[in-house]
Amino acid sequence: MKTQVAIIGAGPSGLLLGQLLARQGIDNVILERRSGEYVLSRIRAGVLEQGMVDLLREAGVAERMDAEGMVHDGVELAFDNRRVRVDLAGLTGGKTVMVYGQTEVTRDLMEARQAIGATTLYEVDDVQPHGLQSETPYVTFEKDGETHRLDCDYVAGCDGFHGISRQSIPADRIKTFERVYPFGWLGLLADTPPVADELIYARHDRGFALCSMRSATRSRYYVQVGLDEKVEDWSDARFWEELKRRVPEDVADSLVTGPSIEKSIAPLRSFVVEPMQYGRLFLVGDAAHIVPPTGAKGLNLAASDVNALYRVLVAAYREGRTELISRYSEVALKRIWKAERFSWWMTSLLHKFSDQEDFATRMQQAELDYLASSTAGLTTIAENYVGLPYEPLR
Amino acid sequence: MKTQVAIIGAGPSGLLLGQLLARQGIDNVILERRSGEYVLSRIRAGVLEQGMVDLLREAGVAERMDAEGMVHDGVELAFDNRRVRVDLAGLTGGKTVMVYGQTEVTRDLMEARQAIGATTLYEVDDVQPHGLQSETPYVTFEKDGETHRLDCDYVAGCDGFHGISRQSIPADRIKTFERVYPFGWLGLLADTPPVADELIYARHDRGFALCSMRSATRSRYYVQVGLDEKVEDWSDARFWEELKRRVPEDVADSLVTGPSIEKSIAPLRSFVVEPMQYGRLFLVGDAAHIVPPTGAKGLNLAASDVNALYRVLVAAYREGRTELISRYSEVALKRIWKAERFSWWMTSLLHKFSDQEDFATRMQQAELDYLASSTAGLTTIAENYVGLPYEPLR
Repeated sequence: MKTQVAIIGAGPSGLLLGQLLARQGIDNVILERRSGEYVLSRIRAGVLEQGMVDLLREAGVAERMDAEGMVHDGVELAFDNRRVRVDLAGLTGGKTVMVYGQTEVTRDLMEARQAIGATTLYEVDDVQPHGLQSETPYVTFEKDGETHRLDCDYVAGCDGFHGISRQSIPADRIKTFERVYPFGWLGLLADTPPVADELIYARHDRGFALCSMRSATRSRYYVQVGLDEKVEDWSDARFWEELKRRVPEDVADSLVTGPSIEKSIAPLRSFVVEPMQYGRLFLVGDAAHIVPPTGAKGLNLAASDVNALYRVLVAAYREGRTELISRYSEVALKRIWKAERFSWWMTSLLHKFSDQEDFATRMQQAELDYLASSTAGLTTIAENYVGLPYEPLR
Repeated sequence: MKTQVAIIGAGPSGLLLGQLLARQGIDNVILERRSGEYVLSRIRAGVLEQGMVDLLREAGVAERMDAEGMVHDGVELAFDNRRVRVDLAGLTGGKTVMVYGQTEVTRDLMEARQAIGATTLYEVDDVQPHGLQSETPYVTFEKDGETHRLDCDYVAGCDGFHGISRQSIPADRIKTFERVYPFGWLGLLADTPPVADELIYARHDRGFALCSMRSATRSRYYVQVGLDEKVEDWSDARFWEELKRRVPEDVADSLVTGPSIEKSIAPLRSFVVEPMQYGRLFLVGDAAHIVPPTGAKGLNLAASDVNALYRVLVAAYREGRTELISRYSEVALKRIWKAERFSWWMTSLLHKFSDQEDFATRMQQAELDYLASSTAGLTTIAENYVGLPYEPLR
């Protein structure tokens, strides 16, 4: 088998990259360890930055998102029983975010890929990239008990934090940066109307809480919990009670509770690997970096990498500008680090740290008090939340 | 002896409060443990916020400052061999800071007090406030071997971090908040022309550096050092060499070195006590709070408290609004905490922490990179640096 770009991983980043490349006539094959149904079953966030929305439109997969997605032009901060609106559109010259589930994005991309007849091989085992420092890399894998070889020009590693792509890079050729936070998020999905039109990020002495949503009839709520908490100890009733204690009274009063569809605890982590490439292997999204979910950057950063890699590959294949290939990591990381900074900052601002000095608590309160009183302060949140501009290729 | 307001401490905050009150016909006596010469010999910072400049004008002591002080309408951040200007005036609608040494402010205030014939008792021992929860407080002290009693309506504690005023409050009636930083600042004063027209705050992998000044011919420079460093281990030559390594090359190249007039190491600390009053005793400035020097807020926060207390006392004496007396601490602290936040943030952004993870270093770099690229980000620095508005009395 032969293709131009071998893509490892059929999550949203692999699918989006494949779609964009295919539309530019660049052949690609996607290899995925899991089934398509499994990929679709993963519950993930769903706040899309303006840049990702534009990229989905460029890929021709935005029709359903534009019809069903909810444009949000604001987001709320809650603290001290107050609610402060961050006017995203007003503070950024009209930029907004789109609330549209990652599952839906993935489904749209799968359907679009099927429609153009591009190859995705699901349930392949033992995927292994080879010859990454040569001009003729290839990927081996097993499918239905047989070993196959896929020759290619480049390999895109879109296979997430635990995938083989990053592990294929010799340890002495990369440097990792990490922060593990001493808490997790307990999330609950319910078919109840969202408590508010916009997301509410709440700081409380009992811990962080987030009121989010997937649609006009499906809500997603989170409360910060200790790492030793078990999801089976959290009945729906206990969850709703805890959530109500952490949000302003008027929010608690209008909260519509209901049975959970899904409930799970996720740890919070910041992680970045430098560089994001090794010879002809490029790391994309979670394969190269993780952000804590505060600020909803995870999926958007995958799109940010897809955008950079797509432009690099188009420049190489269509304009012969192969010198840009070596600049992928630098271009991608410049924006990644800023978003890592924002996610770390928002996490630090809104969560309760178990070893937190009283001074640190006052710093959180004073920062929120300052931000609420400052147009410039609120603008820094808004412009990061809608997504900083994609870095230009140079 | 009898007065309306007994002021403990003849540093700039005690003197400024006394001057403002005297001009409103409110009688006051200042008690100072040291001599006037000693008070003047203390080397301190000298960047005055717009609000403090206005307050000095209101006190009628601004003539020499307005003639000799240097108005700065910008400040620089330096990192990665880059210099980024924060256009204070441009980003805040015309606000600026005034570079004028604390020693000069103190001298002007002493002369003004002498001119109006108000009483300052220097070199008094064993100052002790009494009856603070009654309506008839008084202060006892020894002068020339004799014990004296000063009856008053109110006591203003302007006697600094180590003074008797805060210590006069029962420990169970106040709460302290503190952060001690694991480094200090080694400062050098020299009669050399400043390296730049504006202050330069520099982040470097070797540690923080600051290029500051007192006048067009007197420079003040600082380098971050470990808490175990001794000033006698730092020759002038070693200091200049270290400073040059931490600032951008063009700054190092134009630095004019010379013999030091003074050299000392100061630790960095954040400290706040709540509340800032106890009955008829009010804490002002360093008696109630300390900031690390990054951002030059120390003296300005003393002025901020003086402003609040002055307005409270004038409202009480002139308009009979004694109900405001109990609100002093709340009004003062609202602004203090925001400035504590800014000083802590700027310290955290620019210093090297000895136990710093690589991730934390990248956060500093990404934040500087973001700020440099964002008008909103630079505005948050500018509006805090020139000083947030004084909180209104309500």
